Amino acid sequence: MPKILAFDVFGTVVDWHSSIVRQAEQLMPAIDGAAFANAWRAGYKPAMAEVRSGKLGWTKIDDLHRLILDRILPQFKATLTEQQKQHLNLVWHRLDAWPDTVAGLTRLKSAYTIVTLSNGNLSLLANMAKQAALPWDLILSAEVFRHYKPDPEAYLGVAEIFDVEPTEVMLVATHEDDLQAAQACGLQTAYIARPAEFGKTKIKPVGDLSQFDYSAHDLHDLADQLNA
Amino acid sequence: MPKILAFDVFGTVVDWHSSIVRQAEQLMPAIDGAAFANAWRAGYKPAMAEVRSGKLGWTKIDDLHRLILDRILPQFKATLTEQQKQHLNLVWHRLDAWPDTVAGLTRLKSAYTIVTLSNGNLSLLANMAKQAALPWDLILSAEVFRHYKPDPEAYLGVAEIFDVEPTEVMLVATHEDDLQAAQACGLQTAYIARPAEFGKTKIKPVGDLSQFDYSAHDLHDLADQLNA
Repeated sequence: MPKILAFDVFGTVVDWHSSIVRQAEQLMPAIDGAAFANAWRAGYKPAMAEVRSGKLGWTKIDDLHRLILDRILPQFKATLTEQQKQHLNLVWHRLDAWPDTVAGLTRLKSAYTIVTLSNGNLSLLANMAKQAALPWDLILSAEVFRHYKPDPEAYLGVAEIFDVEPTEVMLVATHEDDLQAAQACGLQTAYIARPAEFGKTKIKPVGDLSQFDYSAHDLHDLADQLNA
Repeated sequence: MPKILAFDVFGTVVDWHSSIVRQAEQLMPAIDGAAFANAWRAGYKPAMAEVRSGKLGWTKIDDLHRLILDRILPQFKATLTEQQKQHLNLVWHRLDAWPDTVAGLTRLKSAYTIVTLSNGNLSLLANMAKQAALPWDLILSAEVFRHYKPDPEAYLGVAEIFDVEPTEVMLVATHEDDLQAAQACGLQTAYIARPAEFGKTKIKPVGDLSQFDYSAHDLHDLADQLNA
């Protein structure tokens, strides 16, 4: 059994898509909120890749989100004041948890140490946890390691911080590439199904889940399987 | 008013002295627990100074505590197995909160973002929070900044993480030197009286508290003064 459960956050713990659709359409009623949310999220990996390759110096997600936002707003023919842009950019601090998240995490916390391992910056994760009542034992972020996932430093950093072996850490995520990278570092892995991560009309394809140690349909199911 | 309250931990939030006396005397009934606790703590600043000066590379508090422990055990004529030493060394993860801490922090959390700013390492602070039910919004440590207090990087790092001005952060501590260093970086300051920090028979001397923005006899008093 693992000692530390390290959770991916965006998509795994919180429903970024519907939260952004709702808040973006409130601010910009004329836009297609679902397309806007997915366009914003689609800029995320390429932006981090520029940091990971060294093309960009260390840049936190709040700033990467703003770079992408400034790029996509004209595509959606949206005109916002600077203050509105700043407020919208922080929507990532105000994402709603999935319905099973708080109760599932609370069960898992009773038996394990539960931490985040997210590319989101520390203030983003702290503000989100405060608003959504996420009961983390510790918030860990790429910002602590100065390496974005899937760099090995992020996964191995969790084990180093808790002075345990990588096999004593389990990554919990709804993204197969994230889990594969964790597995390559020796971590245990648990896949969480979040079929509507990109919206209810755009069901996420799923690969071979037998490659992971656990596969669960939500965090209650994971808590059952881990005897929490 | 500040946005972020950053708390010193050892002495300010938890009663390290009586926790160590109790757990050390359980393990080593023949020793003077109070003298042992104070000897262990007295090694702390000199050990950190070696890291701060660069004489030692980055070394986390768990490892500094162990170095000091190995130095003082012979002075107390105590013989322990390696396993007992490891368990005793982690007593710093198992410190009790002061009686007002959990309720006071919970009040302050309703109106402010409450974070740690401690020289303790992240796993120490996470384990302590889990055991003592400390409701932090975010655990920050010298380990994140790779600088021990009173290096300016630690105090300024809190403001940087939350993207606020140093004046929007308030350090809450029972140590005047810590508060003075925070003040020199532009932070607001609140002194908490913990007269029995070093034991009830060794009341801590107090200097001129008018140099700080707030002075409170416990965390309830601070919550009253900050309208939380």
